[in-house]
Amino acid sequence: MNFNYYLPVNVIFGCGKVKEVGSITKTYGKKALIVTGKSSAKKSGLYDKVKDSLEMEGVESVLFDKVSQNPLTTTAMEGAEFAKEQGCDTVVAIGGGSIMDCAKAIAFLSVNDGDINDYIFNRKKSEKALPLILIPTTCGTGSEGNGFAVLTNPENGDKKSLRCNAIIAKASIVDPECMMTMPKKVLASVGFDALCHSMEAYTSKISQPFTDALALYAMELIADSLVDLYNGSTEVEKWEKITIASTIGGMVINQAGVTLAHGMEHPASGLKDIVHGQGLAALTPTIIEASYKGNEYKFGKISKILGGESAADCAEQVKALLGQIDLTVTLSELGLSEADIPWMAENCMKVSAASVANNPVVFTQEEIAEIYRKAM
Amino acid sequence: MNFNYYLPVNVIFGCGKVKEVGSITKTYGKKALIVTGKSSAKKSGLYDKVKDSLEMEGVESVLFDKVSQNPLTTTAMEGAEFAKEQGCDTVVAIGGGSIMDCAKAIAFLSVNDGDINDYIFNRKKSEKALPLILIPTTCGTGSEGNGFAVLTNPENGDKKSLRCNAIIAKASIVDPECMMTMPKKVLASVGFDALCHSMEAYTSKISQPFTDALALYAMELIADSLVDLYNGSTEVEKWEKITIASTIGGMVINQAGVTLAHGMEHPASGLKDIVHGQGLAALTPTIIEASYKGNEYKFGKISKILGGESAADCAEQVKALLGQIDLTVTLSELGLSEADIPWMAENCMKVSAASVANNPVVFTQEEIAEIYRKAM
Repeated sequence: MNFNYYLPVNVIFGCGKVKEVGSITKTYGKKALIVTGKSSAKKSGLYDKVKDSLEMEGVESVLFDKVSQNPLTTTAMEGAEFAKEQGCDTVVAIGGGSIMDCAKAIAFLSVNDGDINDYIFNRKKSEKALPLILIPTTCGTGSEGNGFAVLTNPENGDKKSLRCNAIIAKASIVDPECMMTMPKKVLASVGFDALCHSMEAYTSKISQPFTDALALYAMELIADSLVDLYNGSTEVEKWEKITIASTIGGMVINQAGVTLAHGMEHPASGLKDIVHGQGLAALTPTIIEASYKGNEYKFGKISKILGGESAADCAEQVKALLGQIDLTVTLSELGLSEADIPWMAENCMKVSAASVANNPVVFTQEEIAEIYRKAM
Repeated sequence: MNFNYYLPVNVIFGCGKVKEVGSITKTYGKKALIVTGKSSAKKSGLYDKVKDSLEMEGVESVLFDKVSQNPLTTTAMEGAEFAKEQGCDTVVAIGGGSIMDCAKAIAFLSVNDGDINDYIFNRKKSEKALPLILIPTTCGTGSEGNGFAVLTNPENGDKKSLRCNAIIAKASIVDPECMMTMPKKVLASVGFDALCHSMEAYTSKISQPFTDALALYAMELIADSLVDLYNGSTEVEKWEKITIASTIGGMVINQAGVTLAHGMEHPASGLKDIVHGQGLAALTPTIIEASYKGNEYKFGKISKILGGESAADCAEQVKALLGQIDLTVTLSELGLSEADIPWMAENCMKVSAASVANNPVVFTQEEIAEIYRKAM
């Protein structure tokens, strides 16, 4: 066995921790670009809280609030231009995965010239970026725990991640209170994304002891919290569990990668702008069914954590969980059709080559097309 | 729940990985101080292997081979003087915990002036040190996974650790092949130390989800390998398990600290230069017996991993394990006597205040004296 483990993530965890953003940020810069989505951080009052905390510690700030779901490479370029114009020396993100990922790309592009697609497809490399402070407001993406930024190229629909250590946050302020205002539907979708991160990292061909230990623990935390929270539990301990599990999910995929569910979801949401967690929900059971024989020991462990007995019923356990959080869905219901399959299968082999290779069973393009078909 | 998690450790793991030391070191420096013990790295051929690999990559080196068991603050100062004289810009350590810890202190003192005891007792702070490359040759201390360096002050017997992020290795080359030449007696003692790190971090009052996940996993790896290896197993997979578990043990104590067994062992070995793992073996069962009611859930988990049923039989399980690796020992057999108890109990409250406070049950100086007495 050979592996490398290096993940200099700095997690500051706890209810109410977001009020420390000013004192944390001032050690990295004097003028922050605050990156948010179009409205929710303003509506929830979180934007004001962050702005005030920065101001109190003498850190100036300007706002970039143009990021949408499935963020575009072009939005990141626009944000970086704005950061440069304004002389920002640090980036603070408030939001879910889309916003954190776009903020990472903005921090990167603010100090690196050229086309971002060259960096995404590893034709160029750089290990510098503006210092990043991330404040997740959804417990799913885990972007606060890794050096990935998933972006979509609007010219060709390619959805693929920029990956480098420079975009690992200098500090991730993980505050369970920031999650508590999420609509139920969002919780279901991001919570399932978090579960997928740990399931995929755990079963990945490049998994390793450090990621296995953390992924197993995170799956237990989710099994013990997601359905209860979806059903309206307000227990702080349950919110802490799902929140930590989400950050761990981000950390483990940094080392062990994702496998086929994420690999096949990216072409789908790159094409139709569907909600990531819903795309995963449509694909995951079918993929587990096709893959579990590649690692019966590990799929058996997952199944047991979810209440099942063995690898053979792992897909059923996942389906049951999806049923409990009203996330049972097909690709057709998400707006995809048979006609999209050839493009998706081909694009999957291109943008998700690593994820295809990490899957416990490695499928051909034809087999992947067949899995898309079954998930319709 | 509130916690911070930041551990920028860079683990390069695998059989034969030590041959990459040259290419790894050259990214940090041009002239390395190689730190070893008096003879074993030379005898085993590992010193030559490291020297040659550095040379091949154009990294000069000089040797400092004066480190003994329970390294002294004065030896670290001597090493730092030598590193400065020789113009070294990086430190490479080959050895067990004593050697890695001394190398960390040398790297620190090479760029920080003043008395090291001021840094150890937190009267002064610094976040700089020469870049460190660590090559562990025993699987116990876990020093390659953290920012601690335990040193003994020969003037007053104080054994306490220097702790800062600057002495976290830039790269830890963890090569199970480097462990395979350890004498059986050393394996027993360092393997038990590794187990103690995970048991203590797991039950520590400042444990957190990240350390819990890793500590549980590491205890399982040790339960599944230590006795077999002690009995002569040559299975590479078993060596990989104990080696990873040791590094994890070092990582988890970086965040969650140690508790009373380490806290009480330091005064004992500070006073009599006893083998650390033997000191732990003499103290741990008595301490668990006195502490398990402070966290029955967690001691129950440990007990189950070791083959037991509940917290109440955890101490018995540890005793049984110690019996299997011929490490059953008392403090009297290690050369300590009743007359030493008052000094040890008092010194424990001074040098191990944090470890005393982290224990699931917090004892007074009188109660600690009583535990020493029971372990005689």
